[in-house]
Amino acid sequence: MPLWTIYHSPEAFSGDDKARLAAEITDVYAPFMPRFFVGIVFKAVDEKNLFVGGLPAKRFVRFVLEHIAREFPDRKASQRFIDRINQVIAPYIGDRGLDWEIHIDETPFDLWSINGFYPPRQGTADEARWMAENRPSPRTHE
Amino acid sequence: MPLWTIYHSPEAFSGDDKARLAAEITDVYAPFMPRFFVGIVFKAVDEKNLFVGGLPAKRFVRFVLEHIAREFPDRKASQRFIDRINQVIAPYIGDRGLDWEIHIDETPFDLWSINGFYPPRQGTADEARWMAENRPSPRTHE
Amino acid sequence: MPLWTIYHSPEAFSGDDKARLAAEITDVYAPFMPRFFVGIVFKAVDEKNLFVGGLPAKRFVRFVLEHIAREFPDRKASQRFIDRINQVIAPYIGDRGLDWEIHIDETPFDLWSINGFYPPRQGTADEARWMAENRPSPRTHE
Repeated sequence: MPLWTIYHSPEAFSGDDKARLAAEITDVYAPFMPRFFVGIVFKAVDEKNLFVGGLPAKRFVRFVLEHIAREFPDRKASQRFIDRINQVIAPYIGDRGLDWEIHIDETPFDLWSINGFYPPRQGTADEARWMAENRPSPRTHE
Repeated sequence: MPLWTIYHSPEAFSGDDKARLAAEITDVYAPFMPRFFVGIVFKAVDEKNLFVGGLPAKRFVRFVLEHIAREFPDRKASQRFIDRINQVIAPYIGDRGLDWEIHIDETPFDLWSINGFYPPRQGTADEARWMAENRPSPRTHE
Repeated sequence: MPLWTIYHSPEAFSGDDKARLAAEITDVYAPFMPRFFVGIVFKAVDEKNLFVGGLPAKRFVRFVLEHIAREFPDRKASQRFIDRINQVIAPYIGDRGLDWEIHIDETPFDLWSINGFYPPRQGTADEARWMAENRPSPRTHE
């Protein structure tokens, strides 16, 4: 459900950094949804192709998040989430002197499909099964 | 109008697969809009840069769709469309044992321009001309 | 706030073109917000991975814009903006015989963070400071 696209300066992360960061980001969502809902794409972009403020960006990370499974009910909830994410990424980003920017878009739940199935609604028995099995299966509710 | 971004494991598709898949996806939209509205970008992402559930993804395809020209009127319509897409991609994806995920976002019709023109509204004579000529030209209606 | 993702045929732009285009795009936003709000990612996509109308695209540029800081109040405002953008890019695109398409999505202001800070709301003293200093700092208003 969340799809993270992470544009980053080529030197920003090692392969090990990416693997650990991906696991830690997934941990943030895991209490609330199946782990396999979390997709993350890293894309290195060099300074000839990445600009901030009209200038080449050499030490920058841009996090683009698409949230599908859940909508934030209010700003308190969204700030709690964003603050948590900022904590999780800090050792990989700000603590290394990189600049970064995050934004989230929320897209329609019904316009979403995994392995041909429609993901279950929040709080259903189907969702509990998807979480327990960590794989998709037919949805039994409307 | 639809922009498809397809992140895929490097081995998932041959060049010929991509060309055929692009044509077949375009066929799904062609009865309803000019063929040149359909844009598709394939991006190979190796397992060091693609994560699902916090783990490296080796056999995964992530379809990100942005719909601009049309909005689904209801869930019945969107499910019919998504089911059709799942049929079209099946020979390239599920039948090969790949996992996949699709989601669609709908973005504002008025915030859209092709070759400097504003695309015509649905059902107009301008739209019929764009479809017949398969190229953009000035819009004559408000 | 605006994030521009520019998919382009590999031959479309030189490195110098990209740098000048990035600066000129940023100039369009600069009267209204801090320059560093403007992020731009260029991604070359060859004709084996870029399709328009179901066919390989050899001379095409696809501009994908995400607007976060501002929403257009009405269609007059959005058309004025899009017309301006079409003017700015013309020397790099249409005047060279390239085809192009632009669309904009507007995403929620509250779901946005830069260097761990929440960007200031429009018209605040915080915003004036961010613009004057061209860097983020703590927001002092709710």
